[in-house]
Amino acid sequence: MTAVAGSGADEGALLDADTPDTVRMTPAAAGELAVGALKRIGYSDEDAQIIADQLVDNALCGYRFASLPRILAIAGNNKTRNERRPIKIVHETPLSALIDGGNNLGYVSVYRATEVAINKARERGFAMVGVYDSYYSGRSAYFMEMIAKAGFVGIHAASTRPHVLPVGGIKPIFGTNPLCIGFPSSKGPVIYDIGTASIMVGEVQLFAHIGQELPEGIAFDEHGNPTRDPNAALRGGWVPFGGHKGYGLSFAVQALGLLAGAGLAHSKVKDYGFLLLVIDPKLTLPGGEFPDHMGELVDRIKATPRRPGVDEIRVPSERSFRERERRRVEGLVFDRKVVESLEAL
Amino acid sequence: MTAVAGSGADEGALLDADTPDTVRMTPAAAGELAVGALKRIGYSDEDAQIIADQLVDNALCGYRFASLPRILAIAGNNKTRNERRPIKIVHETPLSALIDGGNNLGYVSVYRATEVAINKARERGFAMVGVYDSYYSGRSAYFMEMIAKAGFVGIHAASTRPHVLPVGGIKPIFGTNPLCIGFPSSKGPVIYDIGTASIMVGEVQLFAHIGQELPEGIAFDEHGNPTRDPNAALRGGWVPFGGHKGYGLSFAVQALGLLAGAGLAHSKVKDYGFLLLVIDPKLTLPGGEFPDHMGELVDRIKATPRRPGVDEIRVPSERSFRERERRRVEGLVFDRKVVESLEAL
Repeated sequence: MTAVAGSGADEGALLDADTPDTVRMTPAAAGELAVGALKRIGYSDEDAQIIADQLVDNALCGYRFASLPRILAIAGNNKTRNERRPIKIVHETPLSALIDGGNNLGYVSVYRATEVAINKARERGFAMVGVYDSYYSGRSAYFMEMIAKAGFVGIHAASTRPHVLPVGGIKPIFGTNPLCIGFPSSKGPVIYDIGTASIMVGEVQLFAHIGQELPEGIAFDEHGNPTRDPNAALRGGWVPFGGHKGYGLSFAVQALGLLAGAGLAHSKVKDYGFLLLVIDPKLTLPGGEFPDHMGELVDRIKATPRRPGVDEIRVPSERSFRERERRRVEGLVFDRKVVESLEAL
Repeated sequence: MTAVAGSGADEGALLDADTPDTVRMTPAAAGELAVGALKRIGYSDEDAQIIADQLVDNALCGYRFASLPRILAIAGNNKTRNERRPIKIVHETPLSALIDGGNNLGYVSVYRATEVAINKARERGFAMVGVYDSYYSGRSAYFMEMIAKAGFVGIHAASTRPHVLPVGGIKPIFGTNPLCIGFPSSKGPVIYDIGTASIMVGEVQLFAHIGQELPEGIAFDEHGNPTRDPNAALRGGWVPFGGHKGYGLSFAVQALGLLAGAGLAHSKVKDYGFLLLVIDPKLTLPGGEFPDHMGELVDRIKATPRRPGVDEIRVPSERSFRERERRRVEGLVFDRKVVESLEAL
């Protein structure tokens, strides 16, 4: 889910080559395929549409494994087989809400939470909304873009199931704990979206699936021995990004998950907690200067003199939004096997 | 200012050795020395006390260069010679305040902002306060500890003067941009406090002062060539911590500085902006469970099985708070030259 700056050409184009093993689809056709598959595994028309819109947007932005294949993962997840209760606000103030996700997908519960938070921020200038007893929060940037388009700054922290080791430890205690901060600007939304782990669960699973070794030095087996075996890492754990500073950020996101009620679900402080903060910049800048100041910052960054061989300086989310525009025209490329599996659900 | 987990023995003890070139003082005596020096360079009794309290706390927590020597840096800073105007709230809502720092030190302006934010959060459950036209925000953890002791979660982001390069760029555009998040817990405040740069300005200045080379691969001279010369790096810049993820966090803190009015001061979006968010955990957890959930998380982290040779798993701020308790008893050690320079101010 990392969408930050880089150098060089548009790496995304490489993902989009047609081969005998791929299928090219319009975003609309991909959405119809996703909605149909989701309905067949038990989702309502409305929920299926909310989930499909996000999965297609993930595909447009270049996150292929967080797009349609995710439906196969959802179909195979134990939690999906457990009972779903209606998403419910269990505590509410003019500035806040605590939402029992009722074992629903985060794609739906965090979407609903984002709607609640935006409405409260429109009334009062600020909102904090937490969601617990939910899983798969989706791509945080999707929700932060909704918030930024409404003119607000958004912060999303999500604690997830343990895979990440504290510094010096051999048992995972933190989730891969994404952190996302979205800003409105006169140049359009700018969104910082990272996982605080050195590698995502989905990437480790992919390495396992294709039989490739993990990078050196990030993973440990269940006995605490260094390993490059992705299956061993899934039984053990891996380190946060960025050394001690990343460890602390991983900790902070886990703690923010507690604010979202993670400790209420199944009485586990290591459970899922999705926290949203929505801030109207007019709280401090009543003249509405913030989007212009952000646009000016983006312009200054883009105009920074470059090192030899660097084509451009990018700001967070710039590449994924640019790829989205291109794919809206050129269409989306999926593995034929994924499409066939979805049709067969 | 980094105070995160680590392994091994109490490194802080090494700082505290007595030599012919050091002076050992009680915290009270160090405070008196600081107040006297600050008053002699033009600070009021009240401001001198606010600044001295922070500098002594920094010394207690093991941040020697952010303690009494900082007064010499303040005395030598160009901004200190410019006129100071009273710190003034220029915009206010029940949830927020924007503060014109009046070219005062951040030690004072952010302290005042923290008081304002805590009072607003007591009334409404949330506050956002921004400070602009101020410099030297001090140690963010000091303010976040005030907030955590009041029972609130605090977030502090501070944009500072440019030293940090965007990925691929050769001119600095970001400050060293500290980010600090503080949590109340049943075990006492837990505070994550980092700079988003790979190295602090003060550290680079120290390397220059003692004639030592910088670590490989973090710094560039003003022409964009890699350098290990600290003086060249001060004219050029250095990279954020943690690669692309750290770059994005550096960007996000710069943007949060704009929310604090950085773009209003001298019409520069790259100027200082100190932003405080204060959140009452009862907004989402009305039963007051949050400190207990945090305490439980800390216990679980501390109980993580360890790799061979690791004495303990630490949580953010644990080491500095433990060292503070020890130094309250054993006293503080300062360079004799620093003490003499302060007495001579």
